[in-house]
Amino acid sequence: MPQACPAPSPQEGMTYVGIDTLQEQTRLKALRRGYSFNLMVVGRSGLGKSTLVNTLFKSSVTRRKAGEHEPLPSTTEVRQVSASLNEGGVRLSLTVTDTPGFGDHINNENCWEPIVSYIEDQYSRYLTEEQKVDRLLHIPDTRVHCCLYFIPPTGHSLSSLDVEVLRRLDKVVNVVPVIAKADTLTLDERMTYKERIRADLSDHGIKVYPPPQELSKDTEDTDTHLQDHAKIRERLPFAVVGSTTWHDVPGRKVLGRRCSWGLVEVENKSHNDFAYLRDMLIRTNMQDLIDSTAERHYENYRRTKLSAKTPTVNGQDAVDTKEINSSKM
Amino acid sequence: MPQACPAPSPQEGMTYVGIDTLQEQTRLKALRRGYSFNLMVVGRSGLGKSTLVNTLFKSSVTRRKAGEHEPLPSTTEVRQVSASLNEGGVRLSLTVTDTPGFGDHINNENCWEPIVSYIEDQYSRYLTEEQKVDRLLHIPDTRVHCCLYFIPPTGHSLSSLDVEVLRRLDKVVNVVPVIAKADTLTLDERMTYKERIRADLSDHGIKVYPPPQELSKDTEDTDTHLQDHAKIRERLPFAVVGSTTWHDVPGRKVLGRRCSWGLVEVENKSHNDFAYLRDMLIRTNMQDLIDSTAERHYENYRRTKLSAKTPTVNGQDAVDTKEINSSKM
Repeated sequence: MPQACPAPSPQEGMTYVGIDTLQEQTRLKALRRGYSFNLMVVGRSGLGKSTLVNTLFKSSVTRRKAGEHEPLPSTTEVRQVSASLNEGGVRLSLTVTDTPGFGDHINNENCWEPIVSYIEDQYSRYLTEEQKVDRLLHIPDTRVHCCLYFIPPTGHSLSSLDVEVLRRLDKVVNVVPVIAKADTLTLDERMTYKERIRADLSDHGIKVYPPPQELSKDTEDTDTHLQDHAKIRERLPFAVVGSTTWHDVPGRKVLGRRCSWGLVEVENKSHNDFAYLRDMLIRTNMQDLIDSTAERHYENYRRTKLSAKTPTVNGQDAVDTKEINSSKM
Repeated sequence: MPQACPAPSPQEGMTYVGIDTLQEQTRLKALRRGYSFNLMVVGRSGLGKSTLVNTLFKSSVTRRKAGEHEPLPSTTEVRQVSASLNEGGVRLSLTVTDTPGFGDHINNENCWEPIVSYIEDQYSRYLTEEQKVDRLLHIPDTRVHCCLYFIPPTGHSLSSLDVEVLRRLDKVVNVVPVIAKADTLTLDERMTYKERIRADLSDHGIKVYPPPQELSKDTEDTDTHLQDHAKIRERLPFAVVGSTTWHDVPGRKVLGRRCSWGLVEVENKSHNDFAYLRDMLIRTNMQDLIDSTAERHYENYRRTKLSAKTPTVNGQDAVDTKEINSSKM
């Protein structure tokens, strides 16, 4: 009888169970679901925010076309553009949030408030849905997973505006600082400027992404993972150059900015940090940015909101409770 | 200047962004986190529940060693055994829940109650943790992801006990029915018995796993996914044979049961459905079993619990509310 039966495949022999297929099951599930990533760019106008985002995703994912101008909004506005990207069968729904008007006025007091409000509104929407009795199977994730903060290439130090904004943003979102238009700085100037900014960040207690080891609460982080993060931290802030123009160099085409004295290649790691930023943001840490937004920033928001409510709910006055509930949600 | 710089690797050329690396990021994250799967076995004693589980995972993951006997508990008990498995670097923390005493008495009224309570207790623990202000980053998942229900190989139809139990279990957990010790049935008997059981299940409105298309609420399900489920449904209930004894056949070793008239090979798809059950449970649908427990059964439980509370919370009597809250959680 055994001769008539088909022989099992080699891997089915003896002790193979099939636990390793779980990786493939997880991969297929993620493929079916697709990914969504929400990126915010904050910085004064003219620092190349749109160009950098378009260079990162090699598509036009910003509000305006190059060269197009629009009147300056009187306060900071928050605007989104969404795009669906697909590479190798992996679907990414990308939302880029721009903040026109930020820092562009004579008096920039509180110009960060619309930005912080927007970020917290997304947490609030998520929390409201999560707490519903009849909630959605997959809550749409509009939470901002990463905020690229553009520092002007002055070569001096962080401005008071930068400090005030960063101190507020780092509490609510993963902030990745970048030095914009870094081709205006020589390599020496760039190194000194980076050191100065790192000192400024540390002096003002500003925690950028990736967080240092002691802040990482996730017990699942392995040593390799933490070492990778430490390596990225050494390179912060990324000194970047963006460009969507292709140039011919012998044997290939590159994205770059050609001047009479030479060609700055965007993706050349010895010219600027663009490739390091792109690798971190897309190729190594995108999933971690999404997870840490949910596990660190959203949980902080949720804890604060619910702690603020709890004493009142247990308190004496039922009417007060209701009012607080409705105004906070 | 360009000549001096290292050439980018081919894949970095031109328009490659790196979105497809998200799959690898998800895979690495799942590897770091590991998987946990909770399996429950329900059925009268002597149907080979422990043997089947040990055959499935090719390890000893049950409470007792073969041949060991213990006194019959006076009511149904619920007991767990946990094991850590590792294959190809993928870690699986497996918990097998056994229900000794189920259906073994003269009067089996309510013998399913400890089982349903246990399943709901796990949902309740999860809900309590999920609603805490200061909740755990990763809530330990003790929810039962799959319940293998063992039908005796009588060749007749479902007993009233089977019907009563299955009607209650299918509301709270993914139930996969199996015909135990299927080597006692000829192929013809097996086919007729399967048809009869499918008719019984349908007559009593019992919904086993995988659910038919109209019950699948997940909008992310693709056609292929639903077709795979339909194919599995055609084969239900799985007629299985378990064995942890290796036998020599020409050229290889197989798990099986040797009798004087022949050798039943456990993993031979033309001898019995063990390999189909193993493939579904471990190699294709384990992730789906975990997800549908969270998305279908846990959400049902949560909705019922929270709906039951809501009117009382808005009601007049504050003291009543507190009492109900504490007794329900």
